[in-house]
Amino acid sequence: MQVIDVDLHHQISEWSAVAPYVASGLRWRVARPGGPPLARHGFKKVGAAVADPAADPTWVKEHYLDARGVDLAILTGSLRSLGVQPNPDLAAAIARGLNDWTLDNWVRPFNCYKGSILVAQQDPQQAVAEIDRLGADPGMVQVLMGSASEAPLGRRAYHPIYAACVRYNLPLALHIGGEGAGISSPATAVGHPTTYFEWYGSLPQSYMGHIMSMVTEGVFERFPTLKVVLCDGGVFWLPHIMWRFDKNWKAQRSETPWVKLPPSRYILDHFYLTTYPLEAAPEAKHLHHVLEMIEAERTLLFSSGYPNWELGDPFDMIRDVPDALRRRVMVDNALAVYGDRLLAPNRPRS
Amino acid sequence: MQVIDVDLHHQISEWSAVAPYVASGLRWRVARPGGPPLARHGFKKVGAAVADPAADPTWVKEHYLDARGVDLAILTGSLRSLGVQPNPDLAAAIARGLNDWTLDNWVRPFNCYKGSILVAQQDPQQAVAEIDRLGADPGMVQVLMGSASEAPLGRRAYHPIYAACVRYNLPLALHIGGEGAGISSPATAVGHPTTYFEWYGSLPQSYMGHIMSMVTEGVFERFPTLKVVLCDGGVFWLPHIMWRFDKNWKAQRSETPWVKLPPSRYILDHFYLTTYPLEAAPEAKHLHHVLEMIEAERTLLFSSGYPNWELGDPFDMIRDVPDALRRRVMVDNALAVYGDRLLAPNRPRS
Repeated sequence: MQVIDVDLHHQISEWSAVAPYVASGLRWRVARPGGPPLARHGFKKVGAAVADPAADPTWVKEHYLDARGVDLAILTGSLRSLGVQPNPDLAAAIARGLNDWTLDNWVRPFNCYKGSILVAQQDPQQAVAEIDRLGADPGMVQVLMGSASEAPLGRRAYHPIYAACVRYNLPLALHIGGEGAGISSPATAVGHPTTYFEWYGSLPQSYMGHIMSMVTEGVFERFPTLKVVLCDGGVFWLPHIMWRFDKNWKAQRSETPWVKLPPSRYILDHFYLTTYPLEAAPEAKHLHHVLEMIEAERTLLFSSGYPNWELGDPFDMIRDVPDALRRRVMVDNALAVYGDRLLAPNRPRS
Repeated sequence: MQVIDVDLHHQISEWSAVAPYVASGLRWRVARPGGPPLARHGFKKVGAAVADPAADPTWVKEHYLDARGVDLAILTGSLRSLGVQPNPDLAAAIARGLNDWTLDNWVRPFNCYKGSILVAQQDPQQAVAEIDRLGADPGMVQVLMGSASEAPLGRRAYHPIYAACVRYNLPLALHIGGEGAGISSPATAVGHPTTYFEWYGSLPQSYMGHIMSMVTEGVFERFPTLKVVLCDGGVFWLPHIMWRFDKNWKAQRSETPWVKLPPSRYILDHFYLTTYPLEAAPEAKHLHHVLEMIEAERTLLFSSGYPNWELGDPFDMIRDVPDALRRRVMVDNALAVYGDRLLAPNRPRS
């Protein structure tokens, strides 16, 4: 193994191909030209149907995986606003349909792709049912939710989702991109940004909010084996959370007696970060310093964000990652996070 | 000069003492026992009247400034939610009243205190009028707004406030603490936190949102001499913004052609950070690395946050700041930011 890519955005070219996987009552909403009425935030299209070669698994294998030496890619799709879709039944129906469509068309015909169980967190019961439905499938290696959210993910309403992840030993992946759409909170702590540039730059705030919420609400005391992979958010913002939080913990934990360890311990033991898009520090030493702070030798996973490479080639982006870390970032850390299931054969639909 | 403290929270012990400074029509709302109906977020009291020795300028001079070798302190009060007060007229009336009360009772009788022109940003016109009313007073050294906001501070509605700051050569100070109160956006990018611990830890998100908004909306191209001091938010979170933003700028600036420089340049040239409460990194070298990233030799100002020392003594907190930076952080940087007005005599009310 040379490269495991934990974040490949497989695309949908025709929603009509997904529609047969959706329950008949809601199928008409998915089958319409242009696809279902997904919540949009106005900064860029999200979850749009695209006529793109990246929607063809054979083409992607040849032109990306084989061409760049990627052995294995975890598919994360592009529906970032599903968890802030106003209608929770439509969101859950789309998630179920897409999961089956992904298994049939991408995962099971190939050895090089693994799937994510996409769920919509605004109805935790349906999310849990979907994890129970597909959690034992060897083609699925994680549960996936958009980080765009009506509420911080430490809230107790979401805990059944984490119980289900742990039940199947599946990491939870979060992915930025739906922030500000549908029933989402504004995309920053001070309200709605105006331009794509401002909005995109602000996205790591989602992860900061969720980390703080999950730690302070005691998610990792309750689910000590839960792992969370934060896709597509960079890495430089993590140290401030760990150490602001550690300092405050000494004085402020009386309301949260279940937070027994310094917050940085929960963060470093449970969260994983991905390489695309790594911040562009003016000197390599700054990156080296931050990689040391976040214990990147265990916590950092290679991701391409394919095919959205507007910020540059994901292999160029990691050129300043020290050689001593490279094997871990490219392969070993992903194997440690995802375990044997990453290498298990994908089985045909029974 | 040994120490300049840029963030001393002078307290109000009796709102009845402030009421005479408020216009007669709204005076009754301020004079009531417990003070005016200030927006509260439910995490801690904000802007509450307290029977506290810190409300006595003579006591504070003797027991804090003189005892700790502080030559000069900039007063920032404790009304953090004024900019998210639902009634903009009440907010503006309170700001005017408090500014006059501060001048009469704290600034003008002493040489060791300087005031901030408190304004409420939800009505920019009244904020501008207040800056015009007091902007030439040598006792006032900055304009002060809460960072809690209905909208990010780069929005064009707020630009007249920045024009007024520049007109009087006054830095703008922002202060965290009202986040989530009144008409504020939720205190994180993913909704409302639950505990004080989570809420307080999340507060730097406000500054991130405002910085991104002010840079992308072109505030510093329009007001090239504007300086912004970010009080009480720590420092470790700044590098990620600079370099995530710089990277994105290369690909994403077509919507914002007025952002002519890499965003880190605007950030390092226009924003200043304060020392209380510095994050608690497990090793001093991590702090040193971050201080280098943020060019702390120019951008970092000593602040005490007096009297709210729940996170520790502000002098202990800076023990790992390198000796080579100490004089700049304690004195020289504040003199550079605030200029001659910091040393000018406070004149009596004319």
